[in-house]
Amino acid sequence: MRVLGIDCGSERTGYGVIESDGVEHRMLAAGVIRTRSSSRFEERLLTIANGLREVIREQRPERAAVEGVFYAANAKTALKLAHVRGVALLAVAEAGIRLAEYSPLEVKTSVVGYGRAEKSQVQGMVKTLLRLAEPIASEDASDALAVAICAATREAMALHTGVLG
Amino acid sequence: MRVLGIDCGSERTGYGVIESDGVEHRMLAAGVIRTRSSSRFEERLLTIANGLREVIREQRPERAAVEGVFYAANAKTALKLAHVRGVALLAVAEAGIRLAEYSPLEVKTSVVGYGRAEKSQVQGMVKTLLRLAEPIASEDASDALAVAICAATREAMALHTGVLG
Repeated sequence: MRVLGIDCGSERTGYGVIESDGVEHRMLAAGVIRTRSSSRFEERLLTIANGLREVIREQRPERAAVEGVFYAANAKTALKLAHVRGVALLAVAEAGIRLAEYSPLEVKTSVVGYGRAEKSQVQGMVKTLLRLAEPIASEDASDALAVAICAATREAMALHTGVLG
Repeated sequence: MRVLGIDCGSERTGYGVIESDGVEHRMLAAGVIRTRSSSRFEERLLTIANGLREVIREQRPERAAVEGVFYAANAKTALKLAHVRGVALLAVAEAGIRLAEYSPLEVKTSVVGYGRAEKSQVQGMVKTLLRLAEPIASEDASDALAVAICAATREAMALHTGVLG
């Protein structure tokens, strides 16, 4: 199963694509879509949408996953993020890819086995699970890969349970 | 000047297109993009994006306007709306149309001449300003027209001031 994970942000949106059977994961692509702080907000949204469309076109994922909406203490930040998230969800829907949402707790539990894991632990486990020589330099890309790994693991688990059930 | 006003909502997104010199306004189109409550949220975003793209393609507005982000008492509602707004801003940016944002206060002041105007007063003034036989039935479409009228009036005022200044 080929899964795209997206970590939304108005300045940096991370993405990661893995091939996975739910147990073994292989990284196919990872990176960050950066937007210019000097650009108008709608231009930044366009950059993010086009960046994600390009990743989808090149990598052809069958599934996509994002973290659920979070209610930040800072309302302004949360609202900005929700605009970006809207655009990311649209890019996924345009491509007809099935989307799943996971809470940060689910992602951490899935990757580190512990819901309160530190960011650095997540980054370390992403490196280990993908058998990379070096950890992914960008935290946004690493977070996106973590979401993809979570989705692949959960999806495989659901299928397995379905077969046994 | 041809102006598109958008009134964002996850269930109903209103739109209105006017031709205006800043004083006289003529309605070219108005309507509502409805989404199915049974659809997944990303599908609703796709319906809204495609609906706005169609309006832009058919009406070819030179300007677009939306109300600014509002910080609703209900965080969930505000975040949902921000997703839709992200998609609306994207549709405008994709078409290379200049976007302006106005506060609800600015829109009401511009249309009714009074910032605390009731919804029904706005609807009545939209009818009067556009010289329509009947008020616009849909409140969402009427609100979108009000935003377009506000944008056209302000834009003309800015141009005028620029010439005199």
